[in-house]
Amino acid sequence: MNNEYTAKLLEKVRKEKPLVHNLTNTVVTNFTANGLLALGASPVMADAVEEAADMARIARAVVLNIGTLTSDKVDAMILAGKAANEKGIPVLFDPVGAGATPYRTESAQRILSEVNVDILRGNAGEIAVLCGRTIQVKGVDGGGNEDVRKLAKEAAAMLGVTCVITGKEDVVFGQEAYTVRNGDPILTRVTGTGCLLGSVIASFCAVERNYSKAAAAALSFYGVAAERAAAVSGLDQPGTFAVQFLNELNRTGQEEVIQNGKMEVL
Amino acid sequence: MNNEYTAKLLEKVRKEKPLVHNLTNTVVTNFTANGLLALGASPVMADAVEEAADMARIARAVVLNIGTLTSDKVDAMILAGKAANEKGIPVLFDPVGAGATPYRTESAQRILSEVNVDILRGNAGEIAVLCGRTIQVKGVDGGGNEDVRKLAKEAAAMLGVTCVITGKEDVVFGQEAYTVRNGDPILTRVTGTGCLLGSVIASFCAVERNYSKAAAAALSFYGVAAERAAAVSGLDQPGTFAVQFLNELNRTGQEEVIQNGKMEVL
Amino acid sequence: MNNEYTAKLLEKVRKEKPLVHNLTNTVVTNFTANGLLALGASPVMADAVEEAADMARIARAVVLNIGTLTSDKVDAMILAGKAANEKGIPVLFDPVGAGATPYRTESAQRILSEVNVDILRGNAGEIAVLCGRTIQVKGVDGGGNEDVRKLAKEAAAMLGVTCVITGKEDVVFGQEAYTVRNGDPILTRVTGTGCLLGSVIASFCAVERNYSKAAAAALSFYGVAAERAAAVSGLDQPGTFAVQFLNELNRTGQEEVIQNGKMEVL
Repeated sequence: MNNEYTAKLLEKVRKEKPLVHNLTNTVVTNFTANGLLALGASPVMADAVEEAADMARIARAVVLNIGTLTSDKVDAMILAGKAANEKGIPVLFDPVGAGATPYRTESAQRILSEVNVDILRGNAGEIAVLCGRTIQVKGVDGGGNEDVRKLAKEAAAMLGVTCVITGKEDVVFGQEAYTVRNGDPILTRVTGTGCLLGSVIASFCAVERNYSKAAAAALSFYGVAAERAAAVSGLDQPGTFAVQFLNELNRTGQEEVIQNGKMEVL
Repeated sequence: MNNEYTAKLLEKVRKEKPLVHNLTNTVVTNFTANGLLALGASPVMADAVEEAADMARIARAVVLNIGTLTSDKVDAMILAGKAANEKGIPVLFDPVGAGATPYRTESAQRILSEVNVDILRGNAGEIAVLCGRTIQVKGVDGGGNEDVRKLAKEAAAMLGVTCVITGKEDVVFGQEAYTVRNGDPILTRVTGTGCLLGSVIASFCAVERNYSKAAAAALSFYGVAAERAAAVSGLDQPGTFAVQFLNELNRTGQEEVIQNGKMEVL
Repeated sequence: MNNEYTAKLLEKVRKEKPLVHNLTNTVVTNFTANGLLALGASPVMADAVEEAADMARIARAVVLNIGTLTSDKVDAMILAGKAANEKGIPVLFDPVGAGATPYRTESAQRILSEVNVDILRGNAGEIAVLCGRTIQVKGVDGGGNEDVRKLAKEAAAMLGVTCVITGKEDVVFGQEAYTVRNGDPILTRVTGTGCLLGSVIASFCAVERNYSKAAAAALSFYGVAAERAAAVSGLDQPGTFAVQFLNELNRTGQEEVIQNGKMEVL
C-alpha cells in the first residue's frame, strides 16, 4: 500500500462510478450527495423501510449513519445492512454521537449486533463507547496517538470490523494497519465532513475488497483534497472551504495524491 | 412560443412571486428553496399529513417529488395533490427513481392514479416505467432523440399529462410540443438540479395555464442560467457551479433568455 | 447595553463554545449547523422522541423551530423543551409559519402552553397570530415601526417571554427593550437566515442570562456579519452571499461589531 495504489483506486472509483446507498442524517444529505458526485461515485439515498433493502441490493456499498436517527430509520438501516450482507456488499457504519445519549448508544449496539458491519468509522470517543470502555481515551486531541492505535486494534478484534478512527492522525486497523496524516483543521468547521468521509471510504471499498487498503487510500485522497481546498480558503473562511472542497473532490487526481499522500504502514 | 415569450413569463414570475408548495426529498430541500428564492418565486415546504392540503390550497403550484419517499410523505403528497386539484392549482409530479425499487414504482403509480397530475417531469427511464414499458429506451444518452420524443407523446396521451423528459435534449409534450437544447453537462454533477427544475417549471405554470408553453419557457430559462454559471465554473468545479447557478437564477433576465434560448416547436 | 457588550458576549460564545441543541426543519439543518460552527458554537441536532430530552439536558441552549413540523417532531420538541426547563437551560422557540395553516398555529400554541419558552423569535405576522390578534399588523414592511414595538411588548407580557421580532428594524422586548438596525435585504433571498438567527440568539443566551441583552447582541452581530457579506455579493448574488455570510460569521470580530453595531435602548 502506497500513494500509487491510492491513485489507482481513485481512478477505479471514477471509472466504475459505484452506486453507493446512503442511509444518513438529515443534516448532511445534500453535502454527502454532492461530495460523492464530485468524487465520481453515484449516490443514492432511500431510507424507507419499504425499500431500503431493495436499494441496498442494487448498490455496491451501503453506508449507515445515525446522526439524526429515529426508530424507523434504524429499522431501515438494519434491513439495508442485512440485505447487503446477504449479497456480500460492503457495509460501513458511522455511529455518530454514540455515548451522547442512551438511545444513540443502544441503537448503535443494535446495528452492530444485527448487521455484519464491514467498516466502522468514528472518532475515538464513539469507538471507545462501542468497545464498552468507560475510561477516557487520552491523546485524542493531543500529540500522543498510541491510545488511539490500540483502540482501533481492540475495536477491530472485538467487533470483527475494519476500524477507522479519525482525528489529527487517522488510524485504520483491519487486514493491515495504516496511519494517514493528511487533512486540515478547517474540516472540523464544516458540518458533515466526517459523514461524507464515511461515504467516500465506502466508495473505495466498492472497488477494493481489502477494506483496510481501501480505507487508507480514501483517507489519504480525502485529506489531500481538503489540504488543497484549505490553501484557497485559509482557516477563517468555512463557507469558501466547503465550496472549494467539493471542487477539489472532483479535481484532485492521481498526480496530487501521489505527491501529497502521507500514509504509513503500521 | 419563442424566446420573447420565455422572457415575458420570467418577468411575470418575478413580478407575481407565486407561492410554490414543495413536498420534496430531504436531499434537496435547501437547494430547492434557495433556487426558487433566487428565481423570485416564494417557496414553502410542508409535508405533514395534518397540513399538506391546507398549505396546497393557498399555493399557486404544488410539486410532488418522491426522491426520499416514506409512506407518510406519500400520503401527504396525495392530500396536497387532491386539494390542489379541487382548486385548479397546477400539480407537477417528479417520479424520482421510479423503476429502481418496487415500492418506488408502486408509489409513483399510486400518486398518478389518485392525483390529477398536470405536469409529469422525469428522465426517460422513469417515464418509460410509468408507461409500463419494459423495453430499454434507446437514445437517452446518445445522439438519437426520436425515441424520447415518442415516449413523451405516449406518456402525455396515456397519463393525461403535460410530459417533460429531460436529458441532452429536453422534450415537452402537451397542448403543444417543444424541444429545448439549453443547459450544461455539469448540471449532472450537482445533486438536486433535476428536482429544482421541477419546482422552477411549477413556478412558470403558476403564471401560465398553457403548461407546455410554461414548461418550455422554464426549461429554456433554467438552461441559459446553467450555461452562464458553467462559463464561470468550468466542468471541473461543481462547488463553484452550484453557487454561481443560484446567482444566475437571480441575475439571468429577459435579454439573456432572448439571446440564448434554444427552443423549437415540434 | 452597547456595542462593547456585544463584542464581549461574542468572545464569550467563541471561548465557551456552548452546545446548542437544534430541533429544526429539514430545509435548514445544514445551514444552521454550518452557521453555528462558523460562529464558534457547537451545534447538535437530535429530534427523535427517544433522545430529545437527554440531548437537551447536556446542551446549554435549546432551539425549537416548526418550519417542517410533524406530530413526532412536535412531541420531541416538547420533551426537549420540558427537559431544558427543568434544568434552567434557555429555550428559544421560532414559530415558523404560524397562521399559515391551522395545524401550524395549533402546534405553536401547544408548544407555548406545554413548554416554558424563554425567547420567542418570529416575524410580526407570526407573533401577532400567537397573541390572538386577527387584525393586520401595519408597518411590517414599511417605515413605521410603532406597531411592531407595541406587538413585541404585548407578546412579552402575554406569553411571558423575551420577544424578538425581526424585520427592517429588529425589536427585542424583555427585561429591557432594544431595537437593532443592522442587516441587509439580501438576507430575505437565502432560505434559513431567520432560522439560523434563532440558533445564534440561543448561542448568546447560553452565555448571558439576561436574554434581552443576549438577543440584542446576537442581532447586532448577525446583522453586521450580513452587511460585510453583502458588501462582497451585492444584492443580486444570493449564492455568493450565503458562502460569504458563513465566512463572516467566522471572521466578524470585536472590532467590526464595535464599529458597525446599530443598537438602541428603547
